[in-house]
Amino acid sequence: MKLIEALNWRYATKKMNGQTVPQEKLDYILEATRLSPSSSGLQPYEIFVISNSELLEKIKPFAWNQSQITDCSHLLVFAAWDGYSLEKITKVFDRTLAERGLPADKMDDYKKTLWGMYEPLSTEWHANHAARQAYIALGVAMVAAAEQQVDATPMEGFSNDELDKLLELKEKGLKSAVILPLGYRDEANDWLVNMKKVRTPKEKFVTEIK
Amino acid sequence: MKLIEALNWRYATKKMNGQTVPQEKLDYILEATRLSPSSSGLQPYEIFVISNSELLEKIKPFAWNQSQITDCSHLLVFAAWDGYSLEKITKVFDRTLAERGLPADKMDDYKKTLWGMYEPLSTEWHANHAARQAYIALGVAMVAAAEQQVDATPMEGFSNDELDKLLELKEKGLKSAVILPLGYRDEANDWLVNMKKVRTPKEKFVTEIK
Repeated sequence: MKLIEALNWRYATKKMNGQTVPQEKLDYILEATRLSPSSSGLQPYEIFVISNSELLEKIKPFAWNQSQITDCSHLLVFAAWDGYSLEKITKVFDRTLAERGLPADKMDDYKKTLWGMYEPLSTEWHANHAARQAYIALGVAMVAAAEQQVDATPMEGFSNDELDKLLELKEKGLKSAVILPLGYRDEANDWLVNMKKVRTPKEKFVTEIK
Repeated sequence: MKLIEALNWRYATKKMNGQTVPQEKLDYILEATRLSPSSSGLQPYEIFVISNSELLEKIKPFAWNQSQITDCSHLLVFAAWDGYSLEKITKVFDRTLAERGLPADKMDDYKKTLWGMYEPLSTEWHANHAARQAYIALGVAMVAAAEQQVDATPMEGFSNDELDKLLELKEKGLKSAVILPLGYRDEANDWLVNMKKVRTPKEKFVTEIK
């Protein structure tokens, strides 16, 4: 399935039918997510994949009781770093250099410049920047799901604080950024399934300067 | 080309060769970008597509003189709304309802709830939220480019203020969020082209809670 077909096929599924997404499709979606680009390759986020039904029941009230939380197959939680640190950056760069067989000091100048920019910025800026990288991965995950004919519903409407507490994200240096239930549409009961997809018309969306 | 192959093929191209991306490929990438999901379907961003070489020469010094700015075929500028307003939301919802043939007041309750959440939040929160939506589209645009075997280099390293001034974005209620040169890799002169792609190992990236 070509990307544009997949994008036209997908929609923010409002009612899911409880069917399970096969492990190989889930793995494919997670692998695409893992391959997503990020600023300086830091990948400042992790993915929690929740299929435990008791836990999903606990999450539902924090998320406006949206039915997809419990009717989905797996709930992906995109949890972004709560901030950058020299240690975190060093760890990623060290791994990169080791895997590429390059000298351990090869990225020292770049690291210095990068940390020189990040260090004076606020914790809020850090967390926001990390969350933006997670949104790139969210975009890729939604495309991957659509390519696999798996439905998905991106959700920002949930209590980050409650979810962070429940998953003990703060202790892990993480903050929930966005969640994505994966599953299958319940065609008979989803009011959105047959609605026209509406987007900003191209002439208002794109300005070409030649 | 399947998505994971495309993701493995792509990389943040460091040296481009000046070749032009055909219009149909550009249009495909822009259409995929336009179809990207966004919070409440608001698509709070626009895309500027710059191929004018004089303008690109002017942008280059604001972007650390990175060569891709002038060696690319087209530079995409993702410009996010500088804030939400009841007027902007109403315009999008009115279009959605009209295109779906639904009564004009059908989304009134939803609009009230949404604006009730957004209104008390700071301008900075609004701008950040809009920029996050643009990052979803950035993810989709990069996937679309890779599927079309077009190279792309996501860049945050540029002066937003200078670029906003040059493109008169403030007057349009927009702020540059991220830029994406599109073009073709110069294999002989790109130090990154043959480097191994490094990502967080799956076991550190994904936590499954069954």
